[in-house]
Amino acid sequence: MVGSMYKFVMPEVIFGSGSIAQAGECCERLGARHVLVVTDRGVMDAGWTEPVLKSCRAAGLAAVLFDQVTVNPTDEEAAACASTYKEHGCDAIICVGGGSPIDVGKAAAALVTNGGHIRDYEGVDHILHPLPPLVMIPTTAGSGSEVSQFSVIVDSERQKKMTIVSKSLVPDIAIIDPDVLATKSARLTATTGLDVITHAIESYVSIAATPMTDVQAKNALAIAARHLRPSVASKYNKEAKEQMAIASLQAGLAFSNAILGAAHAMSHTIGGRYPFLHGDINAVLLPHVMEFNLIACPEKFREMAILMGEGVTGLSAIAAGEKAIQYVKKLAVDIGAPLTLSEMGFQADAIAAISEIALTDACMITNPRDISAEEVAAILKRAL
Amino acid sequence: MVGSMYKFVMPEVIFGSGSIAQAGECCERLGARHVLVVTDRGVMDAGWTEPVLKSCRAAGLAAVLFDQVTVNPTDEEAAACASTYKEHGCDAIICVGGGSPIDVGKAAAALVTNGGHIRDYEGVDHILHPLPPLVMIPTTAGSGSEVSQFSVIVDSERQKKMTIVSKSLVPDIAIIDPDVLATKSARLTATTGLDVITHAIESYVSIAATPMTDVQAKNALAIAARHLRPSVASKYNKEAKEQMAIASLQAGLAFSNAILGAAHAMSHTIGGRYPFLHGDINAVLLPHVMEFNLIACPEKFREMAILMGEGVTGLSAIAAGEKAIQYVKKLAVDIGAPLTLSEMGFQADAIAAISEIALTDACMITNPRDISAEEVAAILKRAL
Repeated sequence: MVGSMYKFVMPEVIFGSGSIAQAGECCERLGARHVLVVTDRGVMDAGWTEPVLKSCRAAGLAAVLFDQVTVNPTDEEAAACASTYKEHGCDAIICVGGGSPIDVGKAAAALVTNGGHIRDYEGVDHILHPLPPLVMIPTTAGSGSEVSQFSVIVDSERQKKMTIVSKSLVPDIAIIDPDVLATKSARLTATTGLDVITHAIESYVSIAATPMTDVQAKNALAIAARHLRPSVASKYNKEAKEQMAIASLQAGLAFSNAILGAAHAMSHTIGGRYPFLHGDINAVLLPHVMEFNLIACPEKFREMAILMGEGVTGLSAIAAGEKAIQYVKKLAVDIGAPLTLSEMGFQADAIAAISEIALTDACMITNPRDISAEEVAAILKRAL
Repeated sequence: MVGSMYKFVMPEVIFGSGSIAQAGECCERLGARHVLVVTDRGVMDAGWTEPVLKSCRAAGLAAVLFDQVTVNPTDEEAAACASTYKEHGCDAIICVGGGSPIDVGKAAAALVTNGGHIRDYEGVDHILHPLPPLVMIPTTAGSGSEVSQFSVIVDSERQKKMTIVSKSLVPDIAIIDPDVLATKSARLTATTGLDVITHAIESYVSIAATPMTDVQAKNALAIAARHLRPSVASKYNKEAKEQMAIASLQAGLAFSNAILGAAHAMSHTIGGRYPFLHGDINAVLLPHVMEFNLIACPEKFREMAILMGEGVTGLSAIAAGEKAIQYVKKLAVDIGAPLTLSEMGFQADAIAAISEIALTDACMITNPRDISAEEVAAILKRAL
């Protein structure tokens, strides 16, 4: 560490039961008068846009809704969202939803002050002008997008998820209300929870990890390992939901500042072609990527095994690290996550093309072990 | 925790060897043209204002210096600093120094946009208008003021340190360059290091502690316990300086968001009347306050003993907690910190008056055990 330099950025965080009601007041404090609320139909149906709109009215703000967001949102959705913002003369954005509405809201924010096509901002630090005020309300404990400097958007022409990384994408305020998580299905709790675990693990072993991100990643991993199973088991386990919300937040802070690795690089590429849930793809890929990465940082793998509650006394770092990998495999089985790409509908003949594209994803740069297209393909074959 | 609500705020952090050279660029990015650089004579003599002024020139910014800051800075210094800012038509502030120049820069920033006397802002959340851009460069690993929402300023009329707490006081950017710490004396390294430990401990047991502050406080305590002695021992131990800089940063994030306790409330009061070093007063008071607070949260005391490397197997929480207190006492002896108030020149006849005033300090509200003026007096007597 001596001699290196790093940055750490995060939004203001408001955490707690009932905090969703502060959305309007937060925007008002940021100087907004006319808010665009970005969401999707599932969140609307679950009833979580209503308290947000109500809080805007209570704060004396006009609000308009954009709810045309899909599971793996595209450049076209981002452009449509930006148009709605401009048409209605908006001056701030609230996103309510999982990673998808949050990513679309961020991309639209970049477009309204920077112009062009969202493709222009793919990669690291290409957004030059400041964004309008952004207030984020996650409805899943998973994406971490509410605190991150990332937006992941499908380029519909190239059928590829673009990773856009810029400090400007860090929202102003993240409102994390664990009550909101109670309406998620066990299936969605499992998949988003495995995304949290993937964020924690990939950011911890990232070559861009720092003492500031390690503390968040390690804490997130320990909490998620203890509380994900109980959270999947019962929608009434409020303590488990709250703990998973904390884990998601801390994993988000870790990966926003340390970036991710090969599992996310591959997952973004697959998600650009198939309508799979992001967390499902990560869940399947993670243990295979861990097996590949183990030799890069065995001591970190040993530490992860300890954080997940495995006994490692008397074991070498490699043997302890293997227990971390076994832990992740067993966890996916226990909570009913998919275990192979095939069962989701993935076609083996896409492997060559996907491997080449995955290599160009921004998340691949920080993977702890150097990787070739052949090695990516081999991992995908093992995950079939 | 279920049902509570909390906030967590922090500045952007730039950490690393040589990062001081980014000061000017940071101000330029925040829109500044004419920067006020706030510092003190000791920092000037150590040569740390020159690279800052140079970086301003390199970024095309005009810069003016205010170096009239003392060890326990007063309302008059804050007012003089604000006047210099206005006289020269400044639009941003860089502070280079320990807690004192940083606190003066923050107070001056509050005055230039909010007017009045700094006394008007004592307590929590009385600053209504946003502050000019603030970039902080700490030269001690101790105060944490570079990331906190606190400014502590002596009211010269009442001979009392005022604690001013407001989210507006959180700087925009904190630049933490561990190279800067190498020029500190062993004496100053010890006293500021004990301040870090006091921040970590008081924020961890604070009644306003949250999962977000706990993770910072616990990590800061573990790092400081491991690296403070080696950092005092050698000015050439770069690894120890860097670790203490991280501990200081994380303890600062913890107390900025969880506030502090009785040791700081008393220390502020004593520091308003005597020219003692803030870290020295804390070092003397901390074990006595810990003894008083132990029954409020024995499990947290046990956890602190573990974090500082004590073996606690088979011990009750109270017995383990007592080991934490013994650890802190031994540490002060090992690094040559003062052990009594008397040896610093404190007069016993001031105890009654100081006890009454300490009760009104904002830090007293979050102390984990209820406390009376008689109990404060009893602690001060034990610390004589």
